[in-house]
Amino acid sequence: MIPTLEDIHAAAKRIEGIAVRTPLIRNDALDEATGAKVWVKAENLQRGGAFKMRGATNAIAALDPEVRKRGVIAFSSGNHAIAVSTAAKIFGISATIVMPADAPLIKLDTTRANGAEVVTYDRVNESREQIGAKISGDRGLALIKPFDDPFVIAGQGTAGLEISQELTPDIALVPGSGGGLTSGVALALPNTRVFAIEPQGHDDITRSLQSGKRERNAPCIRSICDGLLTEEMGDITYEIARTRFAGAVAVSERDVQRAMAFAFRYLKLVLEPSGAIGIAAALTGAVDIKGKTVAIVASGGNVDRETFIAALNA
Amino acid sequence: MIPTLEDIHAAAKRIEGIAVRTPLIRNDALDEATGAKVWVKAENLQRGGAFKMRGATNAIAALDPEVRKRGVIAFSSGNHAIAVSTAAKIFGISATIVMPADAPLIKLDTTRANGAEVVTYDRVNESREQIGAKISGDRGLALIKPFDDPFVIAGQGTAGLEISQELTPDIALVPGSGGGLTSGVALALPNTRVFAIEPQGHDDITRSLQSGKRERNAPCIRSICDGLLTEEMGDITYEIARTRFAGAVAVSERDVQRAMAFAFRYLKLVLEPSGAIGIAAALTGAVDIKGKTVAIVASGGNVDRETFIAALNA
Repeated sequence: MIPTLEDIHAAAKRIEGIAVRTPLIRNDALDEATGAKVWVKAENLQRGGAFKMRGATNAIAALDPEVRKRGVIAFSSGNHAIAVSTAAKIFGISATIVMPADAPLIKLDTTRANGAEVVTYDRVNESREQIGAKISGDRGLALIKPFDDPFVIAGQGTAGLEISQELTPDIALVPGSGGGLTSGVALALPNTRVFAIEPQGHDDITRSLQSGKRERNAPCIRSICDGLLTEEMGDITYEIARTRFAGAVAVSERDVQRAMAFAFRYLKLVLEPSGAIGIAAALTGAVDIKGKTVAIVASGGNVDRETFIAALNA
Repeated sequence: MIPTLEDIHAAAKRIEGIAVRTPLIRNDALDEATGAKVWVKAENLQRGGAFKMRGATNAIAALDPEVRKRGVIAFSSGNHAIAVSTAAKIFGISATIVMPADAPLIKLDTTRANGAEVVTYDRVNESREQIGAKISGDRGLALIKPFDDPFVIAGQGTAGLEISQELTPDIALVPGSGGGLTSGVALALPNTRVFAIEPQGHDDITRSLQSGKRERNAPCIRSICDGLLTEEMGDITYEIARTRFAGAVAVSERDVQRAMAFAFRYLKLVLEPSGAIGIAAALTGAVDIKGKTVAIVASGGNVDRETFIAALNA
């Protein structure tokens, strides 16, 4: 069930020419502010604006062609929706995406612009699993899970594989939610201490690692980090977290906004809140990185104008 | 006087490890909006936030060490100031920078943060050349010119050289002002039709190519494109423009703001107005690029928060 390094190499071959190799960026100001040697993996420059393209492409590419041609379905608050719809468009198949009605407009619009059928639901009163299961059953669509799937995890792991081809970081700071990205990066970087970074109030990974059992977040908590609101890890990602993560920490919304403003000013990158959370952990010292070689995964840049401006003005 | 391709190769060696190789970025939305195959050379991700690091580093590296250790002086509205002060810091020498008092705050602050001595002047009533000549003479400092210098042009040309190592574009769209970047890119891409893109009202290159003699801009015109306000080309850059540019076009401030907003939304890049002008020319069709393979140099990202927000809201 847990993917191997070979699975990540296979994923890298499968996604080549569809997902792109993103740059690893160094920045004098970030090094000075943190006292570390920091490389930022700019997944906001990934196709579709987020790392999710890697896992979605790998999972769709790995489907039996007969199954794939009937189309795919996914649930997502946003970046997985964009990724699945982008990959489906490239493979020439249909995509149905179940999204919360209050997802960021840029994510809803981009998914629709990719030609996907978007089915919205009320995050508080409806179950996306029930809606998805019904559509999936009625139409015979293959479900592309957002994180708890070996192909998705191996696909996200290609971001870590690309890092490993340029450096061996002491520490990696990776946004954690369902745990797909952090798990994949941890598997790809076996000699690196990999930390999941979470929004305060949505710190189930932190609590799970402390208690030794899988913890849940209270449902319906809102956060500026719209991409990091999964209720709990999956079976596979929890197992990887338990055995492979060096730790997890939570940072505040204010610190995430400061990290977005830092990325604007010094890195010249547009990051969505979830995408800036690793930089927030570095700037605040939530993880002690002084003197270390550090990779930070800046996971995405799909942010509405208003949210971005609010961060610059915070 | 006119640098050769060999000079650009020599510059690439000289700046290696100081300036960085910036990514060439493809984007589905940009291809769809323009009907072309577009690569964006993201010089906003260059050290110091702009391409100017290339030329400044090459010029300082090429100085006689005895001369260099006395320090350098430069005049600049901004990005050349940041570049010279950054390079001087790396070489461990002093830098004195003569800057207009109304330069963007981010550019003044960054130059000072690099340890340079900033001498401001009034753009309307004072001559930066006179101020600079006096300081340079008094202190025996080497002048690092912003564009009309073979080492600076060859340095900027390394951006074109990097493009040539990944593709041979039919067309390149490059911000034009003093002409250093456009000249360098034109020399590095001899089989590409290279266009200089200018702000409306500051279109001396367009007029020079039409009239067949070097034209000037009216002094003290303001533009959102604070990096493209040179009064005229230099002797070397005009000669290269005359013989090597495929043309020049001017675009409006509004179109530059739209290009900044496009880069925010789709490319996830923070671009300053001058840095977005090539994308503006592509999106508006000011240069006909339909069906072509196109390289656009996004020259820099040093933009104040207020100017950026105004572009997103325009």
